[in-house]
Amino acid sequence: MTTPEALTAELQATWHRDIPPAAAMAIGVTAYDGRTLTVRAPFEVNRNVHGTAFAGSLFSVCVLTGWGATWLALRERGLAGSIVVAESQIRYRKAVAGDLVCRCTTEPHSLEAAFAGFATSGRASLLLSCTIDTGDKLAVAFEGTYVIHTKPT
Amino acid sequence: MTTPEALTAELQATWHRDIPPAAAMAIGVTAYDGRTLTVRAPFEVNRNVHGTAFAGSLFSVCVLTGWGATWLALRERGLAGSIVVAESQIRYRKAVAGDLVCRCTTEPHSLEAAFAGFATSGRASLLLSCTIDTGDKLAVAFEGTYVIHTKPT
Repeated sequence: MTTPEALTAELQATWHRDIPPAAAMAIGVTAYDGRTLTVRAPFEVNRNVHGTAFAGSLFSVCVLTGWGATWLALRERGLAGSIVVAESQIRYRKAVAGDLVCRCTTEPHSLEAAFAGFATSGRASLLLSCTIDTGDKLAVAFEGTYVIHTKPT
Repeated sequence: MTTPEALTAELQATWHRDIPPAAAMAIGVTAYDGRTLTVRAPFEVNRNVHGTAFAGSLFSVCVLTGWGATWLALRERGLAGSIVVAESQIRYRKAVAGDLVCRCTTEPHSLEAAFAGFATSGRASLLLSCTIDTGDKLAVAFEGTYVIHTKPT
C-alpha cells in the first residue's frame, strides 16, 4: 500500500515537473494527515510591489492545495481521474508578509457524495475551501469547484 | 508628458523587478490604446499537468492586467496610490492551449465615478473585468475589485 508520505512526495514532484510556475514559486507539500493538506511557498520568491505576498501566488497556492486534496482523495480510493478547477472565488482580507501557508480540509461525507456516482458517470464535482492565515488571523479565503473526469484509457 | 509607450514599459519593468512570479511567468504588456490593456504570457512556462495553461497563471495574468489598467488610469490622471486586489472571481470555461492573452477594458464613466472622491477621501474602489480567449471563444472570465489608497507621504 502506498503510504501518505509517498503520495505527498509524488504530488509535489508532479507539480514541480509538470507546472513550471509551481516550481518557480517553490510550492511544496508540508503536511497531510488524511484530512487536512498543508502547502507552503516561501515569501521571497512570491513577493509583490508592496513587499507582501503576490495575489497571484496566494491564488496559485490555494488552487493547487485544493487540486492536491482532490488528487489525494482519488488516489486513496484507488480512483484515477483528470482534475480541473472550473471556477473559484478568493477574498484577500489581510496582507501576508511571510511564507504562504495554505490549508484545505476535506469532509469525508462530501467526498463520498462527490465520488458516489463517479465509477458509472465518469464525472464528479467537488467544492473545496482553502485558507491562508497570517499570524493567527485569516488572511485569504478561497473556494474552488473542481471537476474530475475519468481519464481516457 | 509621459507617452503611453513609456507608461506601459514602466508598468512591465515594475512587474518584472518587484514581483518574481510575474518575471517567472514572463508576463508582458503587448498593447494599450488608452482604454484596453492587453497582457500576454508565453504558454511554455505556464503549462500544467494537462498540457494546457495553468489555472494559477491564468489568474495571475488576469489579476495583473486589472492592476495594470488601474495603475495606468491613476497615472494618466496624475494621481498616485497603492493598488491592491480585495477579492475576485474567475471562471474557467475552456482550456487554453497557447499563449495566455488577457484584455481589460476600462469604462471612462466608471473610472471617473471611482476616482471622484479620491483626492479628499484617499480611497477608491474599482470593479474590473478581464477576459482570456482561446481562438475566437471566451476561455476565462475574471472579475476583480481593486482598492486604491493614497500613498503614505
